[in-house]
Amino acid sequence: MINNDLSYFFEPKSVALIGASVKELSIGNVIIKNLLHYGYTGPIYPINPKVDNIRGLKAYPSILDVPGEVDLVNIVIPPTMVPEEVENCGKKGVKAIIINTAGFKEMGENGKKLEDDFMARAKKYGIRIIGPNCQGTINSDPKFKTYCNFTFTFPEDGFISIVAQSGGVGAVIMQAFYDWGIGIRMYTSNGNASDVSIPEIIRYYGNDEKTRAIVLYVESLTNPKEFMEIASEVTAKKPILAMTAGRTDKGAEASRSHIGGLSGSISMEVVFKKVGILSFNNLEDLCNAAVAFAYQPIPKGNKVGVITNTGGPAVIAIDELSSNGLEIPQLSQSAKDILKTTMLEQASINNPLDVVATACASHFKSAFEVMLNEKNIDSVYVNFVTPPFVDCESVAREFAEASKKNLKPIVCNYMTDKKKWYETSNILKKGFIPCFDFAETAAKALSAMVKYHYLRSKDKGEINNYTDTKPNIAHQIIENAKSEKREVLTAFEVYSILNSYNIPLSDWAVVKNSDEAIITSNKIGFPVVIKADSDQIIHKSDVGGVVLNVCNNEQVIKVVQEMQQKFKVNNLKFFIQKQQLKALELIVGAKKEQGLGHVIMFGLGGIFVEIFKDVTFNITPVSNTEANEMLDNIKAVKLINGYRGSEGVNKNMLADVLQRVSKLVTENPEIKELDINPIFAYKDKVCAVDARIIL
Amino acid sequence: MINNDLSYFFEPKSVALIGASVKELSIGNVIIKNLLHYGYTGPIYPINPKVDNIRGLKAYPSILDVPGEVDLVNIVIPPTMVPEEVENCGKKGVKAIIINTAGFKEMGENGKKLEDDFMARAKKYGIRIIGPNCQGTINSDPKFKTYCNFTFTFPEDGFISIVAQSGGVGAVIMQAFYDWGIGIRMYTSNGNASDVSIPEIIRYYGNDEKTRAIVLYVESLTNPKEFMEIASEVTAKKPILAMTAGRTDKGAEASRSHIGGLSGSISMEVVFKKVGILSFNNLEDLCNAAVAFAYQPIPKGNKVGVITNTGGPAVIAIDELSSNGLEIPQLSQSAKDILKTTMLEQASINNPLDVVATACASHFKSAFEVMLNEKNIDSVYVNFVTPPFVDCESVAREFAEASKKNLKPIVCNYMTDKKKWYETSNILKKGFIPCFDFAETAAKALSAMVKYHYLRSKDKGEINNYTDTKPNIAHQIIENAKSEKREVLTAFEVYSILNSYNIPLSDWAVVKNSDEAIITSNKIGFPVVIKADSDQIIHKSDVGGVVLNVCNNEQVIKVVQEMQQKFKVNNLKFFIQKQQLKALELIVGAKKEQGLGHVIMFGLGGIFVEIFKDVTFNITPVSNTEANEMLDNIKAVKLINGYRGSEGVNKNMLADVLQRVSKLVTENPEIKELDINPIFAYKDKVCAVDARIIL
Repeated sequence: MINNDLSYFFEPKSVALIGASVKELSIGNVIIKNLLHYGYTGPIYPINPKVDNIRGLKAYPSILDVPGEVDLVNIVIPPTMVPEEVENCGKKGVKAIIINTAGFKEMGENGKKLEDDFMARAKKYGIRIIGPNCQGTINSDPKFKTYCNFTFTFPEDGFISIVAQSGGVGAVIMQAFYDWGIGIRMYTSNGNASDVSIPEIIRYYGNDEKTRAIVLYVESLTNPKEFMEIASEVTAKKPILAMTAGRTDKGAEASRSHIGGLSGSISMEVVFKKVGILSFNNLEDLCNAAVAFAYQPIPKGNKVGVITNTGGPAVIAIDELSSNGLEIPQLSQSAKDILKTTMLEQASINNPLDVVATACASHFKSAFEVMLNEKNIDSVYVNFVTPPFVDCESVAREFAEASKKNLKPIVCNYMTDKKKWYETSNILKKGFIPCFDFAETAAKALSAMVKYHYLRSKDKGEINNYTDTKPNIAHQIIENAKSEKREVLTAFEVYSILNSYNIPLSDWAVVKNSDEAIITSNKIGFPVVIKADSDQIIHKSDVGGVVLNVCNNEQVIKVVQEMQQKFKVNNLKFFIQKQQLKALELIVGAKKEQGLGHVIMFGLGGIFVEIFKDVTFNITPVSNTEANEMLDNIKAVKLINGYRGSEGVNKNMLADVLQRVSKLVTENPEIKELDINPIFAYKDKVCAVDARIIL
Repeated sequence: MINNDLSYFFEPKSVALIGASVKELSIGNVIIKNLLHYGYTGPIYPINPKVDNIRGLKAYPSILDVPGEVDLVNIVIPPTMVPEEVENCGKKGVKAIIINTAGFKEMGENGKKLEDDFMARAKKYGIRIIGPNCQGTINSDPKFKTYCNFTFTFPEDGFISIVAQSGGVGAVIMQAFYDWGIGIRMYTSNGNASDVSIPEIIRYYGNDEKTRAIVLYVESLTNPKEFMEIASEVTAKKPILAMTAGRTDKGAEASRSHIGGLSGSISMEVVFKKVGILSFNNLEDLCNAAVAFAYQPIPKGNKVGVITNTGGPAVIAIDELSSNGLEIPQLSQSAKDILKTTMLEQASINNPLDVVATACASHFKSAFEVMLNEKNIDSVYVNFVTPPFVDCESVAREFAEASKKNLKPIVCNYMTDKKKWYETSNILKKGFIPCFDFAETAAKALSAMVKYHYLRSKDKGEINNYTDTKPNIAHQIIENAKSEKREVLTAFEVYSILNSYNIPLSDWAVVKNSDEAIITSNKIGFPVVIKADSDQIIHKSDVGGVVLNVCNNEQVIKVVQEMQQKFKVNNLKFFIQKQQLKALELIVGAKKEQGLGHVIMFGLGGIFVEIFKDVTFNITPVSNTEANEMLDNIKAVKLINGYRGSEGVNKNMLADVLQRVSKLVTENPEIKELDINPIFAYKDKVCAVDARIIL
């Protein structure tokens, strides 16, 4: 009898606080104060056996003494007392509980026991729980004005809903919107997330009609699959803007105490992208973009019309827009013809359209009309400084008129003293114009919307079910290695597995001594590469375990003998391989992520992997479209497509390898890491040259 | 009798406005209003022949009718009337003029004539001019409160002085500080800069005792040498934080109308670095950093102590600090021992030091003491959220106490509602704590200070005067090409010039036909490279004009004949070169910049140049220290220093090439572009393999 309805957390008809206090500087007092101050519309029941009233409200000795029904309870008493009070809440028929108290599983075994205890009681009664060790919820809807939270920001009604794993970061986000005069819709910080999870909260926001954009801060995912499933559902309806932390080693270390499941920003950002979540690595950028999403439609392309009444900020804006891949196209002749009749003489009839500082409402009106009608323009960016010698209020009304048409998104770098130009600012706000103090900030917010357009309109593609693979071979090799408790597969095993999935390889064989090496080399054809083959030799090329350009029988003997002397390991074998002509060296990799499948990597290989880190990621299963997209996503895409003198390489075959690797690791989840580095790519073929697999 | 004293612009004893107006929405009225509103301390004389008074001030028909002395005049009348009024100002004995009026050289030939006219008159009387086509000046000093400017921001007294080539950008900067509650010292936007230049203004700010940091926005430099000279002087005394625009092609296009001299952000940023100016490419980051510079001492290293009373924002901060190269070292055992006795039980005694949300003044006091005493910590970063259950004012007083010691810089990500926590915010402000709303922002500001520390403490090095060069050879080749009106030098010329400066080259010779090619190839030794040599063939390798791996006489004949058939140009020659073994391919380049010398480039060469743009720049003359620094500044430095299996290359020889190229182009300023690409680098030698020179 689990209750899946989170509405009791946001739209409770009544609220009680177990642990209410008369002490000013206590959470038990602050929550009562917040509910009163925010204007919560239902009855509030402070629970405290020692006092009669708190902040003018009648206090009750126990939740069981409350006369009316109680939808939602906040609990702020010490951890050991929590299970019993949850039991009481069950008896009382409470629907939902926020446990603010800390000191549960985050403090070790004893805390974990207490947490299990109260969770069992909650389940028995079908009560849902947010927390423990959390802030709680806020709902700005005038019908409820719920503030079951000990923070200090009292948001206006708005369209952005927030969920933050870290309460501190949530508070920063909420305060930023407040400082900027932007309302929010709902807020949750769910701390330990023992019951209600972030995906559930996202789904609730997704179903809320008034929420237009969802802001998410998350450091780790306990159930990545659930997250992906629900996030995919929600992003089909409305944008989710997200940030994770721990992208540097030091940052990851600092966040380690929180980490439960999947974390680390690469994997998380790959998850975000896969499900259509827009990812940020700067909180201010995220919040700015959320304002644009809340107020304006999504652009249908990357072409921007720029209107400005001041020179320098437009230059800065265009720098920022261009470097994010947005275009500032020429205006059509017909547009220019109109503007020539409507603009001031000093105006510059171009894109950017400099209406000059003395421009008044009629000039802005025409500028907007032209940009909104222009076929080759998808969005409008405006630099608007408020000259003291212009009637700025009437200019602002033209912004509002243009925005009302809802044809193309408008963002504005609004440069003013908002107190002195209060009415102008107010007209812009009521007209839902996203206004930003800096040109770069406005340009970044628009760029985020354009990025989202492409993310959202992306074809997901299809998963290729190759029927030519021989999964049994791979399966048996892995079972065998497992039975021998080996983690690193031998070259023979690795190449056999790749063969069984038809991943193209350079001709190869494994031999035991120089006699066999000579026979094999002659069969394969010189020149060959000889590699020492043993699971005891890692990073072979660093220790002289790889010799290239072996050209004849004498050299074969010399190389084999030298390796036999150098590497005193049991059962040393030699991996002989056809030496390929010089080619574009790429890398394909796969890494298992708990609870998620595998992350597939593609990028520039060889010595450049660790220097330029020019790699891109996706998650299994990788579709045909996604595989092709991966090829296009690295910086060295020019080398793949062909560049000046060079011809480019076979993209279909590369995309095929990525999909086959995806299938291989999906069907063999025991594979922890797989690396093909390098894989050589030519105009007419691709060819894996070195590979390793770790179970 | 030029007057070099800019003080009349900032500390005028009296001000007149020629073109004062009673019309509310006019510049002639706004400037009077601004002077009155800001509380200018001297007499204000509105000049207007048609009215008796403006905003309660007596108006005079002409500047000549003003009874007292006039130090500074603002002129806002139409351009054609300006020269005569400048003449009148001269007669009156005016010291300085700000011409706000636009319509001079930026509008073409007629405007230029007017500008020349008023400049000649100003010079005659020794009057200095700011503008035309500009905003003007502001000085917040309570003794003057000068506001000879038509903008709308009225800054408090502070320590930051601003000069902006674009008035729009200047206004954004000023308003940002105002919105953040940060005072400024002086402000100038000098528009066309016909007389007083940006370097002069910087020098004036440099000599001003109360200015602690200078903020500069500049799109182009008319006299880069003057700029570098003066900026070097000033940066020796106080930090200059600068930004330029036009870093993308589109941005540069948008700024082209302003461009006079050097522009384009690469060259400008190289200039900034060379003279010790801290460069930004985001205006908000620049302004944030300026606050830190104005309030706190410069750190002496990159090691940060982090104090936080909330988890998530610290993770974000550490991500940002780490990715900017700052370190968050472990605390010493003695520091930990102290903290164990002073912190709350739940606190995390590490770096970051999590004092937890319930921490009060005594905990922060101890945290600061430990961090300020810790030898291995150079700066203190704090995340401070204001919990409603903590006495935050007393916490803030501990910040102020710590800051007063002036031992190490402190920056703070301050998370609060500044209206509700007004007194707390005020204590922090009066304690000169730089406070930022976002963790990233605070971390970036601190990172900028650390970067500045290294920029400032850098050894400039010495210019190597090579005595082994033969400048005459290079000089004669260039004179000869000039006399033949050729811009692209032949391979023979290029390699001869490089030889004459002892820049190491692969053995080479130029031949006319296959017979000569065979003799030369045998002399040099196979394998050789054969290149078509003609100034009519550009991008040789793209059109089949370069053949590698030529191994014997037959191949020589074949290659030469094929090229003779393919390239139907007069006087086709063949450049024969020893083919070098595979090596690290690098690029060294030089490009002339008008009024500046040459920009020297170094980076990863070959096919990667345009893909990764892993290059670094400096300006001639390049010193020994600077040359070595250039080697360390590219991302592929690991390949230069040696990396895993590879040995690294000879850095001394590479640094030598950079200095020799610097000397070569400095002594031959006719060289417009020089490219050595690639230059091969080995453990024991370097070797230029291909090069071109354009005059």
